[in-house]
Amino acid sequence: MNYAMIFYVLGWILNFNALFLILPLITAFIYREDAWISFVVSMILSLAAGLLIVRRKPKKTALYAKEGFIIVAVSWIVLSIFWSIPYMLTGSIPSFIDALFESVSGLTTTGASILTEVESLPKSVLLWRSFSNWIGGMGVLVFMIAILPLSGGSNMYMMKAESPGPSVGKLVPHVKTTAKILYSIYIAITLAGIFFLILGGMNVFEAFNAAFATAGTGGFGIKNDSFGSYSVYIQIVITVFMILFGVNFNVYYLMLKRRWKEILHTSEWIFYLLIIFAAAGMIFFDIRGMFQSAGDALNKAFFQVGTIITTTGFATTDFNQWPELSRTILVFLMFIGACAGSTGGGIKVSRLVIWVKTIIKELDVIVHVRNVKKVKVDGKAVEHEVIRSVNVYFAAYLMVFSVSLFAITFDELDLVTNFTAVAATLNNIGPGLGLVGPAGNFSVFSGFSKLVLIFDMLAGRLELFPLLILFAPSTWKK
Amino acid sequence: MNYAMIFYVLGWILNFNALFLILPLITAFIYREDAWISFVVSMILSLAAGLLIVRRKPKKTALYAKEGFIIVAVSWIVLSIFWSIPYMLTGSIPSFIDALFESVSGLTTTGASILTEVESLPKSVLLWRSFSNWIGGMGVLVFMIAILPLSGGSNMYMMKAESPGPSVGKLVPHVKTTAKILYSIYIAITLAGIFFLILGGMNVFEAFNAAFATAGTGGFGIKNDSFGSYSVYIQIVITVFMILFGVNFNVYYLMLKRRWKEILHTSEWIFYLLIIFAAAGMIFFDIRGMFQSAGDALNKAFFQVGTIITTTGFATTDFNQWPELSRTILVFLMFIGACAGSTGGGIKVSRLVIWVKTIIKELDVIVHVRNVKKVKVDGKAVEHEVIRSVNVYFAAYLMVFSVSLFAITFDELDLVTNFTAVAATLNNIGPGLGLVGPAGNFSVFSGFSKLVLIFDMLAGRLELFPLLILFAPSTWKK
Repeated sequence: MNYAMIFYVLGWILNFNALFLILPLITAFIYREDAWISFVVSMILSLAAGLLIVRRKPKKTALYAKEGFIIVAVSWIVLSIFWSIPYMLTGSIPSFIDALFESVSGLTTTGASILTEVESLPKSVLLWRSFSNWIGGMGVLVFMIAILPLSGGSNMYMMKAESPGPSVGKLVPHVKTTAKILYSIYIAITLAGIFFLILGGMNVFEAFNAAFATAGTGGFGIKNDSFGSYSVYIQIVITVFMILFGVNFNVYYLMLKRRWKEILHTSEWIFYLLIIFAAAGMIFFDIRGMFQSAGDALNKAFFQVGTIITTTGFATTDFNQWPELSRTILVFLMFIGACAGSTGGGIKVSRLVIWVKTIIKELDVIVHVRNVKKVKVDGKAVEHEVIRSVNVYFAAYLMVFSVSLFAITFDELDLVTNFTAVAATLNNIGPGLGLVGPAGNFSVFSGFSKLVLIFDMLAGRLELFPLLILFAPSTWKK
Repeated sequence: MNYAMIFYVLGWILNFNALFLILPLITAFIYREDAWISFVVSMILSLAAGLLIVRRKPKKTALYAKEGFIIVAVSWIVLSIFWSIPYMLTGSIPSFIDALFESVSGLTTTGASILTEVESLPKSVLLWRSFSNWIGGMGVLVFMIAILPLSGGSNMYMMKAESPGPSVGKLVPHVKTTAKILYSIYIAITLAGIFFLILGGMNVFEAFNAAFATAGTGGFGIKNDSFGSYSVYIQIVITVFMILFGVNFNVYYLMLKRRWKEILHTSEWIFYLLIIFAAAGMIFFDIRGMFQSAGDALNKAFFQVGTIITTTGFATTDFNQWPELSRTILVFLMFIGACAGSTGGGIKVSRLVIWVKTIIKELDVIVHVRNVKKVKVDGKAVEHEVIRSVNVYFAAYLMVFSVSLFAITFDELDLVTNFTAVAATLNNIGPGLGLVGPAGNFSVFSGFSKLVLIFDMLAGRLELFPLLILFAPSTWKK
């Protein structure tokens, strides 16, 4: 195990954390909040530890797959811990476990909160929360790869472990360039979102917060009713941008390169949009009697479908009160999730496509034994390795889901609350149904259950294996 | 496609149905019930159709895997339809769809009922219900193979398609002999059950019914409160026998052959018992305050754990009223199910064992790349084909589960009812939670939803692929 390299990367993660803290610090100065001192202290702590560590450059920079996974898992855990320091220092969230829950929830773009109300928090703390959604959305290691000069092989494994989806598509041969392109697209669409929000009457502070949380499909809001009190225009802008951030970023890259044919040959975003329209249509019919106008119901249906399938987790209404059909459709969307290579979470549409095709292929195997065609997606045969990894992902997913559900059941909350709490954290959504519905929050759980859900959020964001490997005994054998 | 052979087997299934009808007919005579005429009419219908079909012997008796699967699926559907005729003719269940639900529920050993009360039914009809549990438990095709002289190759595929578990273990090289041994063990343990039940004060009629429903892990009862009003002794006997029928029958064969070492090397039944004791222990602690004595709570806990994990579905109390921890544990047991090669349903302990070991192996693959050991169960390496089939089984299981849950959601019943209704039918258990809890029944669903659940019961009993193949377009291509 290349411990030197693991520490070195960790050091840089802490340096970056100090860099990120500039943003809330500026906010604190602008709004003359006392919180500035907490951010400065956090920055000093982070930078002191970071600079101390990176002084020792590792001799070997080569990393194996295993080490790539471990670096990513450990980086996320360490970053989450340091991210929670300002929450505690400002007194916004005094308890460590709650502060950790909040920072993990933010960085993993889950957006579940243990706070019962947010409007009384300092603006700088609110921005720190929203910003965690933005950094977590594209990934802190992808950020590091885009900026730091590291050796090629190491980058690939870290990128693989942090990027969502069954197979990581490099846009260009160089990992570093890929990372740069991804962040450029990410920043560009975020700025577009800010522009349209300000156009709708939001002030700059609101727009930045909303855009950060939307871009990362995170879901942290700065109002207690999330987006319920905003104008229809703002709600529509948010809906459109949530859905945009749930699309595989490869599609945007291909758009930049004007490779339109390839875009039409990429089926994932088409399936993704089809699911959105089908789900919103059904929910619209189911809930239309509950709202004053059809337009209102349609807006609510699309917003909620967008927020759940992209795993953002905003709310414009308490969908926990909707009829069972709509509630169940939303539960399905929780699992489906967005596209691979987007900032959204969940199982991912492409995995489901491969999965359904594998089942159909298996039926063909039983039916004609010979002459079975390979599973194809977008005209190309899917590699055996990818199919295998999808299968194992499902198996691991179900195992983590089951064990987590079992573990939090000891709190004796109701089954729908527990089931959707695990679904909402493992899929990085935010709100569930029942006590953790849009009108509730995760403070109902015990400390132990919160730890379980923290694990689920991290496991969901990093797609299980980096986290599971930390617990495999063979990882730590010599 | 060897249609001649498919029809031939179907003909024999109908003849056997006529044979089976002798049992309720005798019961009707003994209790001087008018129902006898309905059974005679059903018998004539079945025999007329059956004898007409089997007159034409097929020239080719060879069957491919595909045809084995289709024969099994079609046989179960046809048998279910003919089994429902007496329900309609006696006026016990006038509606066809309800009668079909009841017969499918019986034959698949689900034990879910659309009847709101059973005590007013003729005794002969009650016996016909319980007997469906018994025949379905070991399987009608296994019965046919044990009796009819058919060619070897055909037998194997039918046996494979009807017997539960990831890999079908032939006890002896001959399929026919294996089938005979299985039915002999089955009859012997059933008779032992009847003996112990009569010893506890049950009359012969009650004992036969209870033993049939227990042996098939079916769950049809003859009292409205299932086993709630029986003595503790009877409840304990039922608990023990349910658990015995959930054990892989290979274990009993090895016992007969005094191959004790091999029994100890078979891990499935050990895991199965461990799960039972762990679950009952936790539930006991959770519910002990609800009952007058610790003994009572322990009895209730073991009975309910036994009835759910073996997928029998009896009840001695309304466990829908239990605390959430116990309810959730029962939901987990619904999915785990009994051992492969038993009469129980569900996913099966052995599949879960293979599944967990596959995940652990995959972690090892990521960790050291080289030098990964094969997945081993009971000291033997699991064949690649078996692992693949387990993975595909899980994928297909989740797909059928999701589509079914979605389809019945249009009835707008609550999520817990819908979720556990699918779980209880696909795993062949019987009662779920909510409106389909032990105190409720499946009459709350619409006709369409009942058809979906009928499909689920058949798909669950035949382990998905025989049923799914009927819907695969490639099956019917020339």
